[in-house]
Amino acid sequence: MSLRNFFCPDSVAVIGAAREEEKVGHIILDNIINSGYKGKLFPVNPNADEIHGIKCYHSVLDIPGDLDLTIIAIPVQFVLQVLEECSKKNTKWSIIISAGFKETGIEGTKRERQLIEKAKEYGIRILGPNCLGIIDTECPINATFTPNIPPMGKIGFISQSGALGTAILDWAKTNKIGFSKFVSLGNKADISENDLFDDWENEKDTEVITAYLEGVKYGREFMKISSRVSKKKPIIVIKSGNTDAGARAVSSHTGTLAGSARAYEAAFKQAGIIRANTIRDLFNYATAFSYQPLPKGKKVAIITNAGGPGIMATDECEKNDILLASLEKETIDGLKEFLPEAANFYNPIDILGDALADRYKKTLEVVIKDNNVDAIVMLLTPQAMTQPYRTARAIVEVIGKSGKDIPVAASFMGGAEVKKAVRFLAEKNIPNFDIPEEAIDTLKVMMEYTDWKSKKEFPIESFDVDKESVERVFGRCRAEGRLELGEMEAREILKAYGIRVPEAELASDIDEAKEIAKRIGYPLVLKIVSPNILHKTDVGGVRIGIGSEKELEEDYDEILFHVRKYIPDANIRGILVQEFIKDKKETIIGMSEDPQFGPMIMFGLGGIYVEALKDVSFRIAPLSRQMAGEMIEEIKTTKLLKGTRGEDPSDIESIIEIILKVSQLVIDFPEIIEMDINPLFVKKQGEGSIAGDARIRIGG
Amino acid sequence: MSLRNFFCPDSVAVIGAAREEEKVGHIILDNIINSGYKGKLFPVNPNADEIHGIKCYHSVLDIPGDLDLTIIAIPVQFVLQVLEECSKKNTKWSIIISAGFKETGIEGTKRERQLIEKAKEYGIRILGPNCLGIIDTECPINATFTPNIPPMGKIGFISQSGALGTAILDWAKTNKIGFSKFVSLGNKADISENDLFDDWENEKDTEVITAYLEGVKYGREFMKISSRVSKKKPIIVIKSGNTDAGARAVSSHTGTLAGSARAYEAAFKQAGIIRANTIRDLFNYATAFSYQPLPKGKKVAIITNAGGPGIMATDECEKNDILLASLEKETIDGLKEFLPEAANFYNPIDILGDALADRYKKTLEVVIKDNNVDAIVMLLTPQAMTQPYRTARAIVEVIGKSGKDIPVAASFMGGAEVKKAVRFLAEKNIPNFDIPEEAIDTLKVMMEYTDWKSKKEFPIESFDVDKESVERVFGRCRAEGRLELGEMEAREILKAYGIRVPEAELASDIDEAKEIAKRIGYPLVLKIVSPNILHKTDVGGVRIGIGSEKELEEDYDEILFHVRKYIPDANIRGILVQEFIKDKKETIIGMSEDPQFGPMIMFGLGGIYVEALKDVSFRIAPLSRQMAGEMIEEIKTTKLLKGTRGEDPSDIESIIEIILKVSQLVIDFPEIIEMDINPLFVKKQGEGSIAGDARIRIGG
Repeated sequence: MSLRNFFCPDSVAVIGAAREEEKVGHIILDNIINSGYKGKLFPVNPNADEIHGIKCYHSVLDIPGDLDLTIIAIPVQFVLQVLEECSKKNTKWSIIISAGFKETGIEGTKRERQLIEKAKEYGIRILGPNCLGIIDTECPINATFTPNIPPMGKIGFISQSGALGTAILDWAKTNKIGFSKFVSLGNKADISENDLFDDWENEKDTEVITAYLEGVKYGREFMKISSRVSKKKPIIVIKSGNTDAGARAVSSHTGTLAGSARAYEAAFKQAGIIRANTIRDLFNYATAFSYQPLPKGKKVAIITNAGGPGIMATDECEKNDILLASLEKETIDGLKEFLPEAANFYNPIDILGDALADRYKKTLEVVIKDNNVDAIVMLLTPQAMTQPYRTARAIVEVIGKSGKDIPVAASFMGGAEVKKAVRFLAEKNIPNFDIPEEAIDTLKVMMEYTDWKSKKEFPIESFDVDKESVERVFGRCRAEGRLELGEMEAREILKAYGIRVPEAELASDIDEAKEIAKRIGYPLVLKIVSPNILHKTDVGGVRIGIGSEKELEEDYDEILFHVRKYIPDANIRGILVQEFIKDKKETIIGMSEDPQFGPMIMFGLGGIYVEALKDVSFRIAPLSRQMAGEMIEEIKTTKLLKGTRGEDPSDIESIIEIILKVSQLVIDFPEIIEMDINPLFVKKQGEGSIAGDARIRIGG
Repeated sequence: MSLRNFFCPDSVAVIGAAREEEKVGHIILDNIINSGYKGKLFPVNPNADEIHGIKCYHSVLDIPGDLDLTIIAIPVQFVLQVLEECSKKNTKWSIIISAGFKETGIEGTKRERQLIEKAKEYGIRILGPNCLGIIDTECPINATFTPNIPPMGKIGFISQSGALGTAILDWAKTNKIGFSKFVSLGNKADISENDLFDDWENEKDTEVITAYLEGVKYGREFMKISSRVSKKKPIIVIKSGNTDAGARAVSSHTGTLAGSARAYEAAFKQAGIIRANTIRDLFNYATAFSYQPLPKGKKVAIITNAGGPGIMATDECEKNDILLASLEKETIDGLKEFLPEAANFYNPIDILGDALADRYKKTLEVVIKDNNVDAIVMLLTPQAMTQPYRTARAIVEVIGKSGKDIPVAASFMGGAEVKKAVRFLAEKNIPNFDIPEEAIDTLKVMMEYTDWKSKKEFPIESFDVDKESVERVFGRCRAEGRLELGEMEAREILKAYGIRVPEAELASDIDEAKEIAKRIGYPLVLKIVSPNILHKTDVGGVRIGIGSEKELEEDYDEILFHVRKYIPDANIRGILVQEFIKDKKETIIGMSEDPQFGPMIMFGLGGIYVEALKDVSFRIAPLSRQMAGEMIEEIKTTKLLKGTRGEDPSDIESIIEIILKVSQLVIDFPEIIEMDINPLFVKKQGEGSIAGDARIRIGG
C-alpha cells in the first residue's frame, strides 16, 4: 500500500487539540496550519467548540465524512477507545503521539500489543506510539510538535529518536538543507523503516533516504527491502547502540567473535546501505548525493588557491585509495595558456593565492573537459585578493555551460568571508565542506555507491547434498538429549554436505588403533572421543604428528591418562585415529545465529590469528559465490593465503566452496545455532581444503 | 632570546607602505593602525611624504632612533639592501613579506641563502620570507595583510601555509575563538616552529600551542624542545603531506616499512605532541584545552535530555576506551530525589525530553560532586519545552559554585534554537561540540595529555659494550669497499654489543662442517657465506632443521649447487654451520636512518607478520627502557608474545634489552644507515633472545 495518502492526506483530524498553547495537541494543530496544509483539518476536543476560529469537534464521530489520517495526542488511557472511533470513520492511518506504551515497562508493553492488535483488526496502520509525527515539505504538512520545518528538498529522513529529530530539523532549517519528508518512528509498533524504505523506492520527491536507527525491525525483511531499494537510491544510515547488550551464552569461537555490531555491519554491507558514523557524515553524504551526479570512476581533480589545503586533500585521497587524476596533455597545455608560471599545472592544480574568480573559472572550464577526471574538488581560502562569492558564481556558471555530468564538491574555508559564497553554492546544489578532508571522504562514499549500483547480483548456488543423513544425526542427538555435537557427528554432517574431512576411524583399544594406523599410514593424529569432552585440547586429548607405531603406543596411553586425570567420569567412546594433513594453512569457518538477522557466517585464519588479531569477516547467510570471495578478501591476513615470499598460493576456491556449503547447511537446518569448522586445513591451489575438526550446536 | 619584543615591539617600520590601497604594504600599515598598536609606527616609501596623515620616511635610514621590528614588503630585488639599512638602525627583527625566494626555484633559493647569511651578520632574526606576518592580540598588533584579527585568547597558532592561516583567522573571528598569537612561517628561512615553541613555553598569554606544519626543521632539535614544552602546555599539530615523496633506495625490511610518515608519527609520540588530523580537530582540541581544566582520570558522566545522543556518546566512549563513570550511591540517591521516575539514574543519565533548565541544574549539582567522575558531558537537543539558553546559564552557574576542577564539555545540538546558548557557553569557556562524538574524542585527547604530563622520564641506559671491535669491523669493510655487511660481520658487531647470536662456525668444506656439527650438536642450520650474497634464502643458500650427518652431507652439496646455479661468479667464503634454535617466536628488530629525525628503530613479529600485516612499531633512537617496552605493547600481534591458549609467554624482557642495545649501537655509530636483525628468535620467559641473522648497511 502506497504511503502517499499518509504523507499527504486529504483529511486530518487532530485528536487532543487543546486550547492551551503549550499542549502538544495545540502545537501540532498550529504547525499543520502554519505549514500551509491544503486538505481538510479537524480539531477534536470534547471541551472546545473552536480553536483559532476553526470549528472543533467533541468527538471523531462527529466529523462529517471519512478521515484519511488521525493524529492522536491524548492521555494514554483513552487511545484505544479513540482508535475504535477512528475505525468508524474509515481511517487508514493513525499517528500516535501519546506516550505511555512500551517505553514505560511491562504494563506499557501489554498496552502497546493490545493497540496493535486492535489496529490490525480495524485496518489502521500506526506510526508510533510515542513519536513526534511527520513532515512532508511537498504536500506541505508539518504534523509534528516541532515548529522547525526544513526547506523543500530531496532528502527523506527517518529518526528513531524524536529528540534527535528535533535537533536535526532545527539544524537543517538553519543551514537550509532541503528535506522531502521527515518521519519520527517512536516505538515502531507498526510502521517501521521497512515500510518507509519500501515506499520511498518509487517516491519521486525523495532521492536520498537517510535514517537514524537504534535497531532494525525484522532483520531479514530489512535486508531484502534495502538491497533492492539501495540499487535505485542511496540509503544512508546511522546505527547507534553498537555496544553488545549483556553477555551472551556462546560456546564457539564464532559465537564469541560475532555479536550484534558485527551482524549489523555485515547486513548493511550486503544490503548496500551506506553507513554514516555521525550526524555530520550523514548530512555531508546526503547533501552531496542529493545535489550532485554520481562519479563514474575514482579519479579526482583538485583545484586550489593555496598549497596547504591542496596537500590536505591529497593526503586524504591517499588514505582512502582515491586516485588523483593524471590530467590529459590538452588540459595541461590549456592551463599553461593562462595560469601564471609559478602555478602547479598538475593535480592538485594550484592556481596561486592571487587567483581571482576569473582564473578559477578558466581553470574549471579546462579541467571539466578532461576525460580522465571523474570528480572535481574546488578549494578556496580567502586571501587578500580572493573573490569567494564571484568565484562561487563562476563555478556554477561553468558547470551549467559544460553539459558535463560529473560531481563537483567545494571546500571554501573560513568564516564570514566565505559565508555568502557558501550559501550561494548550496542554493545552486554545490555541496560545500568545512574542511577539504570531508569533501574527499564524501566523494569516496559516492564512488563506493557507484560500485554498488553497478554490482551484479549473483545467484545463490545449491549443491547436491544428503539432507536425510543430517536429519538422522540431529534426530539421534536430540533423542540422546545432546545439543552440542562433537567431532564424530560433525564429521557425518560435513560429509553429507560434500565437505572433505580427514580419513579417520574410531579405535576402542590400542590394537584396533594399530590396525587403523596401518590402513591410513603415518604420520597420524589421535583424538579423544567422548560426549563429555568438547574442548579436547584442554584436557590433553589430542596428539598430532605421530610418526611411528612406537609413538602411537605412547601417545595413545598418554591421552587416556590425561583425560582420566582431568575428567575421571568421562564416558570415553574411544580414540579417533586420523590422517595427518601436511602442507596446509589453518583457517576457520563458523556460523552463529544472530537474533536479528539469522545465521551469520564467519571466516578467518585459524588459531592464533583469530584469537589474537580477531581478523575475521562476517556475512549473513545465504551467500553467493561472490560474497564468499569477498569474505576472504576482506580479512587483513588474506595475503597469507595468496602466497608471500614465493610460497605456493592456497586453494582459495575450495574455501569459497566450503563457505557456500556451510551457508546452505545452516539455511537448510535452522536448528543449527552455532558451528565452528576449526581448523579448516587449506592445501595449496588445486588440492582442496579439509575440515580438521568441527563442532555444531543445535537448538532444543 | 625572548621573542617578547618581536611580538610586541616598541617601534615598527613598514617598508613598502604604498599609497595604493590594494598594495600589501598599505594593507599591513592599515591593519597595524586598526589593531590599536600603541608603539611607534614608521611607514617607509621613497615616493611618499605621508600616508593616512602619518609622516612617511623615504628611507629606513631617515627614521629617528632605533627600530625593534621592520616589516619588509617590497620587490625582492631590493630586500637585501633594505636589510642592510635596517641593521644600521639596530633592528633585531625583520618580517619579510616579499616573495621571490626559495619557493620560486634555484635562483630564489640562492637569494634566500644570501639573505640569511647577511641577516646573521647583522644580528637580525628573520620571519619568512614569503609570509603573511604576525598577530599579537594582547599587544595588540596585527602585522599581517589580513584584516581578520581574532579575539584575545589563550591559543597560539603557527601556520606554515599563509593561505590556510587566513582561512583560520577568518573562521576564528567568525566563531569567536580567542587567539593569543598568530604567526605565518612562510619559507622558515630562520625563525621556525622550534623558536616559537621554545619561546611560548614560558609565555604567559599562550596556554595552548597549535600549529599547521608541512614539515619540521631540525628534527632532533624539534623533538628536544617539544618534549620539554609539551610537559607544560599542550602542543597540537596538524602535519600534512603524509605521502612519502618519491621512492627511496632501501634494501632492508625496516627501510621498506619506514618512511617519513612513520618517522613523524614516532617523533610526535615521543615528544608528547598531540596530533590533529584536521583543522576541525585542531580547534576542537585547542578550545577545550584553553577553556577547561584537565581531567584527572578516564571516567566520564553523560547528562542528556534525549536517548539517541546519549547512545551516540556511549558508543564513542566504548570505541575510545573511555569509561562511563559508575556513579556513587549518594549521587544516584540524590538524583532520585527530584528526577521523574522514567529517567535513567545511571550513566548516561537521561533526564528526559521535558527537562527544563532547572532539572539540568539540579542534576549537574549532584553529579559534579561525585568522586568517580573525572569529566562531564552535557547533551541537549532542543525539544518542545527545552530551554537551551537558560540551561547554558544554569550549567555555568553550577560549575562556578561547585569549586570543582573537572572539565565539562557540551554538545547542544541543532541550529538557530541553540545558537544563543552555544555562544553563551563559549563566552563562559565551556566548549560546545556540534555532535556528541566530538566532545568524547576531545576528552579522550585531554585524558591522554594528562597521562603524558604525569609520565616520568626514564634515563637512557648505557650497556658495557666493545666499541673497538665494531670500529675494527667497519674499518675492514670500508677498506674492502663493502658497505653492505652480511651475516658474518653482523655477528661480530652484535656480539660486541652483548647481543646473543647462535653458536656457529664457518666451514670451508664438508669435513670441516661435520667436525663443527659434532661440536655444536644436531639439529643444525646451514647458510652460505659470500660477500656477493645478501639475500641468502632467495638463492637457495639456507637449509634449516638438519637432523643428522647424512642430511648434512646432502644439504651441504645442495646449497653449493643452488648458489652456483644462481650466482656462478659468487665469491664463496664457506658455509656457516649454526645451532638450530628451538621453541622460539620469530621477531624482527631493525633500524633505518630518517633524513629528518635520524636513526629510527623498528620492532615487529617476524616473517609473514611483517610482510603481510605490516604490524610494526617505530621509535626514534635513543630509547629508554620504557619506550622499548611501549614499542612491543604497540603492535597488534603483541598478544602472541604474551602466550595465548596456554602457551608459555615469550621473553619480552630480553627483546627490550636488545632494542636498547641496538639503539645504543646506532647512536654510537652514526654511519649505520640501515640494519635488520631478522629473525630475532625469542625464547620463552627467562631464556633470552638470539639474533638468528642480521644485516647492516653503513654510509660511504
